[in-house]
Amino acid sequence: MTPYPLTLTAPERIPTLSEIFRPVSRRVCQVDRALRSWPGSSSPVVRRMASRTISRRGKLIRPGILLLVTGHLGYRGHQDIFLAAAVEGIHLASLIHDDIIDRSTYRRGEKTALQKFGPDFSLLLGDFFFIRSIARSLSMKETEIPEMLAEAARMMIEGEIEELAESYNFNIGRRRYLKIIEKKTASLFQVTCQLACRLGRAGSAEAEALEEYGLNLGLAFQVIDDLLDLVGQPAQTGKPLFSDLKEGRVTLPLILALKKSDQAEHRKLTALLEAAKKKREEGVWPALSALIQNTGAIQETFRQAASFTARARSAAGRLSPSIYRQSLLQLTDFVLWREQ
Amino acid sequence: MTPYPLTLTAPERIPTLSEIFRPVSRRVCQVDRALRSWPGSSSPVVRRMASRTISRRGKLIRPGILLLVTGHLGYRGHQDIFLAAAVEGIHLASLIHDDIIDRSTYRRGEKTALQKFGPDFSLLLGDFFFIRSIARSLSMKETEIPEMLAEAARMMIEGEIEELAESYNFNIGRRRYLKIIEKKTASLFQVTCQLACRLGRAGSAEAEALEEYGLNLGLAFQVIDDLLDLVGQPAQTGKPLFSDLKEGRVTLPLILALKKSDQAEHRKLTALLEAAKKKREEGVWPALSALIQNTGAIQETFRQAASFTARARSAAGRLSPSIYRQSLLQLTDFVLWREQ
Repeated sequence: MTPYPLTLTAPERIPTLSEIFRPVSRRVCQVDRALRSWPGSSSPVVRRMASRTISRRGKLIRPGILLLVTGHLGYRGHQDIFLAAAVEGIHLASLIHDDIIDRSTYRRGEKTALQKFGPDFSLLLGDFFFIRSIARSLSMKETEIPEMLAEAARMMIEGEIEELAESYNFNIGRRRYLKIIEKKTASLFQVTCQLACRLGRAGSAEAEALEEYGLNLGLAFQVIDDLLDLVGQPAQTGKPLFSDLKEGRVTLPLILALKKSDQAEHRKLTALLEAAKKKREEGVWPALSALIQNTGAIQETFRQAASFTARARSAAGRLSPSIYRQSLLQLTDFVLWREQ
Repeated sequence: MTPYPLTLTAPERIPTLSEIFRPVSRRVCQVDRALRSWPGSSSPVVRRMASRTISRRGKLIRPGILLLVTGHLGYRGHQDIFLAAAVEGIHLASLIHDDIIDRSTYRRGEKTALQKFGPDFSLLLGDFFFIRSIARSLSMKETEIPEMLAEAARMMIEGEIEELAESYNFNIGRRRYLKIIEKKTASLFQVTCQLACRLGRAGSAEAEALEEYGLNLGLAFQVIDDLLDLVGQPAQTGKPLFSDLKEGRVTLPLILALKKSDQAEHRKLTALLEAAKKKREEGVWPALSALIQNTGAIQETFRQAASFTARARSAAGRLSPSIYRQSLLQLTDFVLWREQ
């Protein structure tokens, strides 16, 4: 169980992703197939790398959301499949490049592209997926759609640049952190909902609710990601602990720990962080993690995520009832309580 | 003077780029300004990096060609400026990523983005330029234009992946080499002409001639680039010698040297290449360069480039006379005889 000593009570049972996406499960598989068909006309080396990179364990959360929303809106057509593949392609491109930057060797329990092909091939493979994703969206009838997707990709890249620029800045505040994760993660969730609204011709109240849903779900998703980096189970998350800290990323648990700590704790925290920065890492990570937990920052980070999922839930609650809305609501629980 | 012991006679005087692009010089400056305005609404860190990356010494050859072609076609409007900026942006993105892969510290006599910002920021900055370039082309009225641009970018990336996959493959043939440089370099020159034809509503004969011009000019451009890596003057090219060889790139001069060498030369060549591959580099590069020159491969490589520029010239010759056509013709001489 997630080790958050909580004031919040966990739901009796957290739904699994395959339960949540059941109303669109067949269509999510079509997205996966569409994505795998992209390198079709490419040269063998590109095809081979691409097919070895599209993970069998990818959660396909963004495509799932897009299809739940078009389902809710009663959209009839296939453009949402291709669009969901484009969104997942953008996500995949950014994962491949992130893993180069973070020197990550494992993700979702599988070797990363970096580990499989080295940094040079991975770099170009990420480029390939970026360009292909935008290119695939160009066949959509609505010309605003590729613009929205390119804009989300730009936001994401800028968010990553800003995050990198704040590496080892232990004075970064909660507000700045939230602005960065909004750009780097939540913007793609938000645009996923907006794109689905555009395809499904959502009314303005529905579109507003869904946009709010996407934004807040995305924020919660990233906050929990940052939490799992400290308190997750590598066997479940599929990646080693403390990856963010090791790269100098200052995430919410640390920001709150620095803010909530008393003078003695603060001194210890700062000393450990300085040691980490100078790569004198022996014994640093467990000590840092214990200190952060002592300050109560873990629970407060979780509460921050919970407040985002509460907003997402309330936004989805404004939609008319449907099996798709039900899934969108369940997804907020999954994102908050997930252990992977 | 270029050290090619030639059967071909050099023109009395090679025109400079600023002479060649004189008919569109004011408009080329507008392209430069358009490109610099891109990061306008971005965060300060992105703006700062982008403006420090857009070179003051960039040749702006692709934008120049695009504007010469729209000039020749009598196009009246400003879309060609934005489109030329998008083409240059794609080129810039790929240079930034290439420099990461090749670990290049200098280009055009300036520090590369890699050298200025390190690999992580450079990677994201390249992504930023890729995405922005496609995004900027989306505002064009013709929906095929972003598709053509994205397709050229895909070809370019695939060409680079294939080139990388052939590193240290000393058995690669001329035909395979030409296929790779067509994808990685010539496709963007070709699409530059095609895009200009689309905007300027070229007739089919004109369009065919210009497409042939772009393709052959691009092929010649890359062959000469590969030649300058062996026999250029670093003070002129702005980058160190043997960069390709050091990264295991097998380019035309080497391919031809291996083919033309007698048994003794071939043995020496292979021994030097194997030493280089194993990073036992002492004394290897000058010896390798001398051996390659001995076989006559330098002249034959130059003749290959000359045959491409001859085709480009003949294609441009099919256009009706104009000052713009005159520049396109001069450009073939510049590309062939350039020392930078």
